[in-house]
Amino acid sequence: MSAAAARGPRVTEAVVTPVAFPDPPLLNASGVHQPWALRTIVEIRTDEGLYGLGETYGDAAHLALVRRTAAALPGLDVFDLADAYRRTAAALDGAAASGDKHGLIGPATREKTLLQVYSPFEVACLDAQGKALGRPVSDLLGGRFRDEVPFSAYLFYKWAGHPGAAPDSFGEALDADGIVRQARAMTERYGFESIKLKGGTRAPEEEVAAVHALRAAFPTHELRLDPNAAWTVETSLQVATETRGLLEYLEDPAPGIDGMAAVARGAAMPLATNMCVVAFEHIAPAFTRNAVQVVLADHHYWGGLRRSLELAAICRTFGVGVSMHSNSHLGISLAAMVHLAGAVPVLDHALDTHTPWQDGTDIVEHPLTFHGGKVSVPTTPGLGVALDRDALARLHENYTRCGITERDDTTYMRRFVPDFTVGRAKW
Amino acid sequence: MSAAAARGPRVTEAVVTPVAFPDPPLLNASGVHQPWALRTIVEIRTDEGLYGLGETYGDAAHLALVRRTAAALPGLDVFDLADAYRRTAAALDGAAASGDKHGLIGPATREKTLLQVYSPFEVACLDAQGKALGRPVSDLLGGRFRDEVPFSAYLFYKWAGHPGAAPDSFGEALDADGIVRQARAMTERYGFESIKLKGGTRAPEEEVAAVHALRAAFPTHELRLDPNAAWTVETSLQVATETRGLLEYLEDPAPGIDGMAAVARGAAMPLATNMCVVAFEHIAPAFTRNAVQVVLADHHYWGGLRRSLELAAICRTFGVGVSMHSNSHLGISLAAMVHLAGAVPVLDHALDTHTPWQDGTDIVEHPLTFHGGKVSVPTTPGLGVALDRDALARLHENYTRCGITERDDTTYMRRFVPDFTVGRAKW
Ligand SMILES: [Mg+2]
Ligand SMILES: [Mg+2]
Repeated sequence: MSAAAARGPRVTEAVVTPVAFPDPPLLNASGVHQPWALRTIVEIRTDEGLYGLGETYGDAAHLALVRRTAAALPGLDVFDLADAYRRTAAALDGAAASGDKHGLIGPATREKTLLQVYSPFEVACLDAQGKALGRPVSDLLGGRFRDEVPFSAYLFYKWAGHPGAAPDSFGEALDADGIVRQARAMTERYGFESIKLKGGTRAPEEEVAAVHALRAAFPTHELRLDPNAAWTVETSLQVATETRGLLEYLEDPAPGIDGMAAVARGAAMPLATNMCVVAFEHIAPAFTRNAVQVVLADHHYWGGLRRSLELAAICRTFGVGVSMHSNSHLGISLAAMVHLAGAVPVLDHALDTHTPWQDGTDIVEHPLTFHGGKVSVPTTPGLGVALDRDALARLHENYTRCGITERDDTTYMRRFVPDFTVGRAKW
Repeated sequence: MSAAAARGPRVTEAVVTPVAFPDPPLLNASGVHQPWALRTIVEIRTDEGLYGLGETYGDAAHLALVRRTAAALPGLDVFDLADAYRRTAAALDGAAASGDKHGLIGPATREKTLLQVYSPFEVACLDAQGKALGRPVSDLLGGRFRDEVPFSAYLFYKWAGHPGAAPDSFGEALDADGIVRQARAMTERYGFESIKLKGGTRAPEEEVAAVHALRAAFPTHELRLDPNAAWTVETSLQVATETRGLLEYLEDPAPGIDGMAAVARGAAMPLATNMCVVAFEHIAPAFTRNAVQVVLADHHYWGGLRRSLELAAICRTFGVGVSMHSNSHLGISLAAMVHLAGAVPVLDHALDTHTPWQDGTDIVEHPLTFHGGKVSVPTTPGLGVALDRDALARLHENYTRCGITERDDTTYMRRFVPDFTVGRAKW
């Protein structure tokens, strides 16, 4: 061939901006959401004037590693993801693994840290690639297997408002009636056809009662319950019996691959997880023991969109279903999730999202919207979302003022409930 | 976003050309190679004047399905691989699964047939994508993890020439001396640092003797032996003992996942396969039983380059090594293999190729070349190989004249050795 070797847009700068946005007091097994949720926004700028966007966690230790990596990216060809990965690994060389205080995906490891730090840069490179090519990111992932991606309503037990602050617009939900009320409001506004209840915060029998109340109020919706491993194997089996026929899946009832495998042997419904299979090294032990039947993928910790597609391929190969996990997030992550879900050949369940809880706050112009509980996969170049620079500045201002630098639901909870214990096999 | 939805080059025509090229009398457990090897060349042409290339098997039943699919492709957006897959499936709807007479990858299934027919079109679309973007195919697969891809010398017992024809330039190899002579010629010309012997054609003790002779002649080369499942479990274990410490891996000694698992329990070296794990449905049973330690990927039957990358990800996740299988092929397949291998994050072993046996015959201009046993991953747009239309016409003319329409090593062998029996657990 006489053609010159390809040379794509190169990174001139990677801008890292921590942001904060108001978050309601959502209860979970680790405690309660703080008044501000944190995220880090990554923008890579290129010598061709394009930019690419990524979004990741906002915890201080993670932010520091993201910044270290950003400093190593100038000169990167945005098409060379292998080089992006190598640069990330080199930037983190010698850094401690960065964990988190909520601990939902288990102890920090170097591998997990690397994949978490790499993820927003991979997404930003794919966004820039798509813009350079005039193609949506889903095309770069192998093409769209669906035009619309279904999401689930994500219900939480919650207080009326943060202590000392005015009640929020979502209202209190501390019993089955409150949960059904919340479900009605959320499904009416977004059209979700699947409903997930975050459990692990009340006694199991109360949460079972809430599931029954949801089934009575929503006879045809898919239902899920996720106590974040707050139950023992015995309690899990008891709940499985009491919710038999009601649940699409039961999510992380008990801790660990051993615990999940024990529950799976006795439970009629599939078990899902975003806690015991959170890294490639967990797949073989979990799948060979049939510990889980659904994996909730999450590109933020599985190492980006391509690695998440690999995860989905592994699941498909082993007859394990795929859905998607969510933390509090903004519109870049939503767009990334939608492109990924669009490109997964077999998608078994509606995705989780915290989007309704951010109540319209975003750092993208014209955020993707829900119709009938679904989001259309953008067909415009890249991720299909543009940075709202004014909003980014405002949310960064929030970050500098809010005084929160890491997510810590437990410490915040103990300000109000001093003897609160984190629930691993607590019931 | 106000940008218009992306719309890429669209297929105007998919041209399918069967070709034939001279093939030496290479012996294997199914018989002996016929005088002509068959391939099918796929060229998709687009409304932007670009073309994309793919290459696949030439057997008549397969060719018919490739043609059926080609007829369904006009209008396809070359970036929409999901649509390419759907069109292939629709084109094959109602067609019988197409098997082959050599039977190395087991009985035909609809799923295998679909993936085999889809493969050349996926490669051709990726080639066209790369050309449209000015990027090598390896970049579309996630980037280059290596700049050079190592290959293995692929030795065969062989006759001096086809019966009734003049001896070929490669010479006879019917014993250890002949094999060592062949290895010297091939490693000198191409620089290979790994040597594979195709076995399953002589008594096992003769093939063991050839391995010992190769080790004596090549003290530092990696060695492999592949009898294509011609041995029983007992014979396999015996050979494993007699070749202990000599082999990088032992390839498909015995038939089936059960047989391989039994050999694996007693053999010191890893076992490789391109026979008992040849579809996604085989992975779970084989991996959970530790039946194989290396999978020889082959994009021609695993459904193209992206699905092969998924296979590699699954192998990596389960601690199983990856190498690559080869049938007789031309330069489009070689380029596709090299881009794929370049984009596999962890590549454990040198790849197989039949390229030396085609002795310079090709349908691409300036075929990729071997230096030190390695081929550089092209950095030019697409696959990096251009169609030599004169050569294509010549090889198509071969096809129309040679009278062979399917590979059938067994029937050809029986013309000369009437009582020849195909070797599955034959020794
Ligand atoms: Mg969960
Ligand atoms: Mg083989």
